[in-house]
Amino acid sequence: MFIVGELINGMYPFIGKAIKDKDKAVIQQYALDQVRSGADALDVNCGPASKDPVSDIQWLVESIQGVTDKILVLDSSKPAVIESGLKALKNKAIINSTTADAPKLEKLVGLAKQYNTGLIGLTINSQGIPQNKDQRLELAAIILAYCSDVGFPIEQLYLDPIVMPINVAQAQLKDILESIHEFKILAEPGPKTILGLSNVSQATCSRNLINRTFLVMAAAYGLDAAILDPLDKDLMDAAITSQLVLNKQIYCDSYLDAYRKK
Amino acid sequence: MFIVGELINGMYPFIGKAIKDKDKAVIQQYALDQVRSGADALDVNCGPASKDPVSDIQWLVESIQGVTDKILVLDSSKPAVIESGLKALKNKAIINSTTADAPKLEKLVGLAKQYNTGLIGLTINSQGIPQNKDQRLELAAIILAYCSDVGFPIEQLYLDPIVMPINVAQAQLKDILESIHEFKILAEPGPKTILGLSNVSQATCSRNLINRTFLVMAAAYGLDAAILDPLDKDLMDAAITSQLVLNKQIYCDSYLDAYRKK
Repeated sequence: MFIVGELINGMYPFIGKAIKDKDKAVIQQYALDQVRSGADALDVNCGPASKDPVSDIQWLVESIQGVTDKILVLDSSKPAVIESGLKALKNKAIINSTTADAPKLEKLVGLAKQYNTGLIGLTINSQGIPQNKDQRLELAAIILAYCSDVGFPIEQLYLDPIVMPINVAQAQLKDILESIHEFKILAEPGPKTILGLSNVSQATCSRNLINRTFLVMAAAYGLDAAILDPLDKDLMDAAITSQLVLNKQIYCDSYLDAYRKK
Repeated sequence: MFIVGELINGMYPFIGKAIKDKDKAVIQQYALDQVRSGADALDVNCGPASKDPVSDIQWLVESIQGVTDKILVLDSSKPAVIESGLKALKNKAIINSTTADAPKLEKLVGLAKQYNTGLIGLTINSQGIPQNKDQRLELAAIILAYCSDVGFPIEQLYLDPIVMPINVAQAQLKDILESIHEFKILAEPGPKTILGLSNVSQATCSRNLINRTFLVMAAAYGLDAAILDPLDKDLMDAAITSQLVLNKQIYCDSYLDAYRKK
């Protein structure tokens, strides 16, 4: 599973403060800690409190690139912030994210092509979050069709079914799991699939347990990638073991260490 | 998920000794500990060292029935031992197990009908353990057809795809997971599915982690029941949370306690 570390996000107070103070050492430490824990890529999000995200994202990208060449996942709902981050790139990148709305698709697929990056497509539009699997598939098909029309490589597209919190929309979780499988068979070659995991356990009392259980179930449905906290060791152990069961990593007695040292 | 506690099995030294010494208190303690940990049923197996399993299984059944009215899962490869256990029954029961071989099917489906019990059908025959999904489905179809022909209720049949150890047959595990889903759509109404879980982690160094990861993935594929160690709290937490994700138990902050007190 392709693991995107979620911690460099200004919504976390320790990161928000580091962005405000331009404390590069804190950002670099979180970058390295996540990479050492098994992250393949790092999400980069200025957070809601940033007064100048167009500038802050460049500072974040430059700070992180100072210590790792891992893929950066530029995370903003504002295309101008994404574009600014792209201009500071040396590493490879994934844009996080477009929706299924035409203006966003046009702008962000265009940027992804221009900068040769991956792209996360959220199955959501201006009318809101889908409430069932059919709506998710419909929005996925819109994103796929647009990418296909303009020649964006589908293997570089990560579709995200939008995970709802279990205490709010429990009945939707099975639909979301099934969407993962069905997204992948909408095209040939199929798109990749990704989840923003932590949302599933928002405001619950057993966050880590719910996160890792849902992740392992999503892996069973064919999930390719997840945005999560790689410092949660039990979660990473579960993710790694799910890949072992699916025969994507060869068994050895020390398979957990072997994965982290890869 | 229907949880069958696996601990009352003479292959465990503490149970083997209790059977030899006819130490009822030990058996009853393991019965109660498993029930209090969330077991819905208790496997009952004299183990390979029993010199007189036909008699020992009756003593086990009577000992356990002295402290709980939970379902007993009478576990032996010898039909005469199963039949002896059935004669001592007061509780409900499930026969563990028949294979797809005609003489066994005839004898054990007959006993299950006569004693009005459930029946576990292993997708195995005298030629050995299947090596792929098609062979598993073929054997499942033989068991289903026989049950259907003689009027055994399919809802009372638990098909077991036979789990192989991950360090021996890693490439087969995904086939086994998919078999769970496919068994259920072989008939309408579908059979139930069950796993003897611990086999997946035989002789590995991370048994508990591999067990709970595989169980959660199997739950995602629709598994109905598992034979496992309910005293492994992390395993039970994972099983309970998998049912929460599938919307089979309503979310509340104390859902783990709520399940165990059910």
